[in-house]
Amino acid sequence: MTTAVNTSPATGTAFDLGPARALACRECGHQIPLAAEFACAECFGPLEVAYEFGDIRREDIESGPESIWRYRGLLPVPSTVDTFPNTEPGRTRLVKADRLAAALGVKSLWVKDDTGNPTHSFKDRVVAVALAAARELGFKVLACPSTGNLANAVAAAAARAGWESVVLIPSSLERAKVLTTAVYDGALIAVDGNYDDVNRLATELAAEHEDWAFVNVNVRPYYAEGSKTLGFEVAEQLGWRLPGQVVVPVASGSQLTKVDKGFRELGELGLVEPTPYRVFGAQATGCSPVSSAYKAGQDVISPVKPDTIARSLAIGAPADGPYVLDTVRRTGGAVEDVSDQEVVEAIRLLARTEGIFAETAGGVTVATAKKLIDNGKLDPDADTVLLITGDGLKTLDAIQDQVGPKATVPPSAAAVREALGY
Amino acid sequence: MTTAVNTSPATGTAFDLGPARALACRECGHQIPLAAEFACAECFGPLEVAYEFGDIRREDIESGPESIWRYRGLLPVPSTVDTFPNTEPGRTRLVKADRLAAALGVKSLWVKDDTGNPTHSFKDRVVAVALAAARELGFKVLACPSTGNLANAVAAAAARAGWESVVLIPSSLERAKVLTTAVYDGALIAVDGNYDDVNRLATELAAEHEDWAFVNVNVRPYYAEGSKTLGFEVAEQLGWRLPGQVVVPVASGSQLTKVDKGFRELGELGLVEPTPYRVFGAQATGCSPVSSAYKAGQDVISPVKPDTIARSLAIGAPADGPYVLDTVRRTGGAVEDVSDQEVVEAIRLLARTEGIFAETAGGVTVATAKKLIDNGKLDPDADTVLLITGDGLKTLDAIQDQVGPKATVPPSAAAVREALGY
Repeated sequence: MTTAVNTSPATGTAFDLGPARALACRECGHQIPLAAEFACAECFGPLEVAYEFGDIRREDIESGPESIWRYRGLLPVPSTVDTFPNTEPGRTRLVKADRLAAALGVKSLWVKDDTGNPTHSFKDRVVAVALAAARELGFKVLACPSTGNLANAVAAAAARAGWESVVLIPSSLERAKVLTTAVYDGALIAVDGNYDDVNRLATELAAEHEDWAFVNVNVRPYYAEGSKTLGFEVAEQLGWRLPGQVVVPVASGSQLTKVDKGFRELGELGLVEPTPYRVFGAQATGCSPVSSAYKAGQDVISPVKPDTIARSLAIGAPADGPYVLDTVRRTGGAVEDVSDQEVVEAIRLLARTEGIFAETAGGVTVATAKKLIDNGKLDPDADTVLLITGDGLKTLDAIQDQVGPKATVPPSAAAVREALGY
Repeated sequence: MTTAVNTSPATGTAFDLGPARALACRECGHQIPLAAEFACAECFGPLEVAYEFGDIRREDIESGPESIWRYRGLLPVPSTVDTFPNTEPGRTRLVKADRLAAALGVKSLWVKDDTGNPTHSFKDRVVAVALAAARELGFKVLACPSTGNLANAVAAAAARAGWESVVLIPSSLERAKVLTTAVYDGALIAVDGNYDDVNRLATELAAEHEDWAFVNVNVRPYYAEGSKTLGFEVAEQLGWRLPGQVVVPVASGSQLTKVDKGFRELGELGLVEPTPYRVFGAQATGCSPVSSAYKAGQDVISPVKPDTIARSLAIGAPADGPYVLDTVRRTGGAVEDVSDQEVVEAIRLLARTEGIFAETAGGVTVATAKKLIDNGKLDPDADTVLLITGDGLKTLDAIQDQVGPKATVPPSAAAVREALGY
């Protein structure tokens, strides 16, 4: 299992996707020219973008756009990517989290707050890269199956670009989640079925419609690369260095492997010192197939039926699960899982200490970090980064029975003072 | 009525509030030393921060933090402001909005998308400045009366700083808005009364508790300056130049006057060419006291009882209304108002064309811009900036009966195709 970095091109290609030169199979290494393919024709393994990077200096990046496009020289997008309308995600806050650090008992902690993205989750990063690549590959429609963040991101990016979008959701989705996608006025289609049905339908439609780019299906190799920008930004915002430890939520597992890939590329290109780092994966116990495999010392993932409030992580058969296991084992990290109650407590802990209101996935990350510190797997003396990838405004139901006013009082100053114990 | 910029200091002061030297009355010009005061002892006029700016170069700003603190040399905050925990707002996207421009019939249009702030509204800017000044002035508690964005921002900033917060809300506030403040775990107090009752209570409590900084009451002069950063960022993001026209939503009116103040300061300090610009105010017809006064050619504002879905703008007696009139008249702008139906249509227009989902206040801004173009008051050939100051996720009720799935279908590709007209 190799990751193709700086490989030579498989063949010439008609597309301008920047430093991308080919698609390479993550299992057998077979390469094909850049195209809208996602599975290896030789072994059915997943395809990944292979690059031939040019000379990239910190100054070039620092003087680039205030968005992920400053890293365009490291992404499968045209060099002119920032001249086309897209959602300009990225450059979100990396917050030095001293109060959370004290609460968790670690020395140096940072929170990457990706709620600042255009539709308030990291999905804007991957969708923006998918859109940029899809345009170059000749697609005309941006599409996805989703139940939440991805639907928002696809509908918004397509709207901004003036593309049609097709977003498939289960018809049982809550009204609030329907509204936050429907407002962008693409083709939002409610499907009478569960998420698995919707997903199957997406794969079928992707095969039938040559000009539809299902971001997480037929252009998935490009889409996935967008998560590298989380790693790039963390390193740049730390002053061009790698953290000692990073905790990443695991849904499909793609994000975790791409943050690692981003760190490695920076080291290989001389943009940072290639200092050792450890990557940790975070799951909710109610959907923890990767954590279970990790703990059992297995290499394969046994699918599960998700049952957790962390719905944005609820992928029972995570495609990149085996690569997550490779990454955490290679770097000396671990995968851990936490209960829904721990998730809610962690959402509240992060809000109370750092003023950051995360969605349930963020609660999973913080709670997992706490557990990993308590069980001695995270080094309390190493520089640690937690990835907060989505917004609490989208998962209000998780806290609705947990928080509220301290008191309800009549309109008098004396009553307020009394309620506050003065 | 003068704005004190670069005035000499009234007296020496023990506080380090950067370039701030005094508080000056906007009506009579009387100056007092920097303190937690908001009304002139001579004439009861509102106090404003007066500065003595040092030599500030573009390079100093450009090499500063990726937040409003890059402008600390232009704000009433300590020069060490970025070393204390605060919410690091600002540096939000300035989006070139070509599709919205085409829809509105203007040549060059930008949208300042302030939904990217930590709690997703511009209130993070003003609260961060209030917190920084309040710390230096010796306060220990951050407080406000609010029904929404301000409550979120105060509770989050206090949590991050490790301060206590006291947030007063009407007890009738919707559950979702309660949750988004309560999660930060400050002292959220529900008051049996309307917003006017809550506001009166805040003024009373501010007078009684010397260590409580009510951001929009006793530290209001500092708080208000935070809105200048919207002007600074627009100019910097345009490549250090002023736009020809800017459309700003009007609640208290403070933001509009401070954007203007920011533009003027940049010009006076030689950071931009002091090219002419016009400032336009946007209100909802259901709460349009400033627009009414503007249209009637009056200098005074007649208070109204608000009745609009744009609740974050629903201030019936706007404190800075007269200064808004001064500003728009001096710059050759105007104030206009739009119906709630136009607001909803504009939210949808912005989402559909640019992938930006604004709260109702943003709908007011876009709808007003449309009306001003249609009635010839906005020049379609001038560079125009619209300020989108809050997030649609917080006002979902505004669109809930307007948008939804295009179709609900059985889980088959044929059914999807048919629904899409293929």
